[in-house]
Amino acid sequence: IFREVVKILRLQIIGFGFIGKNLVKTLYFKKNYLKEKYGLDYEVVSITDLSGTVYNEKGLDLKDFLNIRKVDEHEECIENMRGLDAIKEIDADIVFELTPSNIKDGEPGLSHIKTALNVGKHVITSNKGPLVVAFKELKELSKRKNLELRFEASVGGAMHVISTALETLAGCEIYSIQGILNGTTNYILSRMTKEEMPLNILIREAQEMGIAERDPSYDIDGIDTACKLVILANEIMKMNITIRDVKRIEGIRKVTPEIIKLAKEKDYVIKLIGEVSKETIEVSPRLVSKYHPMNVDGVLNAVLLKTDLAGDILLIGKGAGEETISSLISDLIKIYRRVSI
Amino acid sequence: IFREVVKILRLQIIGFGFIGKNLVKTLYFKKNYLKEKYGLDYEVVSITDLSGTVYNEKGLDLKDFLNIRKVDEHEECIENMRGLDAIKEIDADIVFELTPSNIKDGEPGLSHIKTALNVGKHVITSNKGPLVVAFKELKELSKRKNLELRFEASVGGAMHVISTALETLAGCEIYSIQGILNGTTNYILSRMTKEEMPLNILIREAQEMGIAERDPSYDIDGIDTACKLVILANEIMKMNITIRDVKRIEGIRKVTPEIIKLAKEKDYVIKLIGEVSKETIEVSPRLVSKYHPMNVDGVLNAVLLKTDLAGDILLIGKGAGEETISSLISDLIKIYRRVSI
Repeated sequence: IFREVVKILRLQIIGFGFIGKNLVKTLYFKKNYLKEKYGLDYEVVSITDLSGTVYNEKGLDLKDFLNIRKVDEHEECIENMRGLDAIKEIDADIVFELTPSNIKDGEPGLSHIKTALNVGKHVITSNKGPLVVAFKELKELSKRKNLELRFEASVGGAMHVISTALETLAGCEIYSIQGILNGTTNYILSRMTKEEMPLNILIREAQEMGIAERDPSYDIDGIDTACKLVILANEIMKMNITIRDVKRIEGIRKVTPEIIKLAKEKDYVIKLIGEVSKETIEVSPRLVSKYHPMNVDGVLNAVLLKTDLAGDILLIGKGAGEETISSLISDLIKIYRRVSI
Repeated sequence: IFREVVKILRLQIIGFGFIGKNLVKTLYFKKNYLKEKYGLDYEVVSITDLSGTVYNEKGLDLKDFLNIRKVDEHEECIENMRGLDAIKEIDADIVFELTPSNIKDGEPGLSHIKTALNVGKHVITSNKGPLVVAFKELKELSKRKNLELRFEASVGGAMHVISTALETLAGCEIYSIQGILNGTTNYILSRMTKEEMPLNILIREAQEMGIAERDPSYDIDGIDTACKLVILANEIMKMNITIRDVKRIEGIRKVTPEIIKLAKEKDYVIKLIGEVSKETIEVSPRLVSKYHPMNVDGVLNAVLLKTDLAGDILLIGKGAGEETISSLISDLIKIYRRVSI
């Protein structure tokens, strides 16, 4: 698998929250592994957060960013340099766009991604917002510019649904995608099933654990799942839909301990399922047999791909958390392979 | 995804049993789809079975091979031309080696594959025998000749374990592979669990259904699972093992209805699990929680990959049957992509 090193990839990181910090950790600890196994070599030339941009054209010393972020003397810290300027002004090959999802207008991620592509940089993102708002526009732009726009991390964390469907299952037609795509609601439903507790108390508990946001409606009302469906439908099934085309978006607010108990008596559990096929695009709570492998616990995600050649393929993995970094890294390797040919 | 067509790939099929016939069906029915979606174009120039070789240098009319195999007037049927001669004498790019597995000496598959590589042809195979007997030798030969030797179909049918581990999860270190890799034993264990019937009766039933071979020991004693472990360990974890390195190979003969009943009382099922890691290479019946997603029914297979970056990834799919063709087709697309660059 080792290839000749053609160049050292110059990486920029925009957004330094949970994902950004864990990415830096992985880029630091796996540097040798990735170089030896894939020939992939890189430097992170800039990291941008809300306060500004830290920059070193020879590559930042990632060790400094593992715990508290402190700026070394040989690193330039440009206090007011925002993401857009960092993308425009700093020489780099690949931009990691890791700012928080905003599904209203996709910003600031949308401008970051467009600008990166326009100045000739490949993009890897975990940010659903820009994809939900402007999927077609971004894909067309990346094609026109002959650049990669990869977003494995935006759906299903570590499950790698997109490359499973498009690469691993190459040759198969994907008839439908069904799945548990939101860990927060799945955690709450799993707890409700086990302990017959009401939704409100469990939402509060999930918030205290950091699993749920302060405004839980994005998860609880199925909007997050709907956003992920839009991305999967457009990328895997080559549809051209926005969130308004998801025909029904019903979350778990109406799921009561009584309903769960009734289901349990018949050996069913209730899961929040997103489904996309030619006939159906919807998010809704559904009955799943207690013994079906899709009945996954806690923050796990599960995706069932129905295909013509391979039949049903079920994929289960961590839908969020630091495992998501694996998707950013596999995207990076794929871009490296393309540029190193 | 569409690329310019660089050439029409010339395919040879050696072995025309269940897999060979279903491959031809798929190559016939999906020809337009594969051409439009991937730019992949091909002709099957020869098909060899025990009676001889049917050959047309312009490509066989696959329609003739869908039901009964009849030879068209413009097709040459060389009655005594065996696989080896077909590989040596007929001009082609890729050989599908689909003869039955023989794990004693790997033949005739081993000679077919070696010869194909030696005369400059890529190889796609579903045949475990040659890989179990001579993995290292075959891999080295294919590297030396700069040719592809692909065998996704040899393990786990439609699950695509190899490309999931090596491509989809690129960047991850795979710590261990655990799985239910034999549909026959899993079918029998599932029935034993549901109906508390003894092994012997279920073996006979499985034989009548065509799920088990007349000599069932290859499946029942765990040898098939051990062979698959050897292939996965060598390819995914870059080990260099043969079946003699599998430290324990215990099948399901000692699993009685009583043991299954005892397990059931504690919410466990018994599954035949193959496992490979740095510490363990073994096949043995193990207790699995009734609620674990690995508790799959019937002829399904399941594989759990433990990784550093992506955590645990579980893959479930049909382990045998016509769905296996999906693995041959994705291998074909990957070779096409390489030769068409």
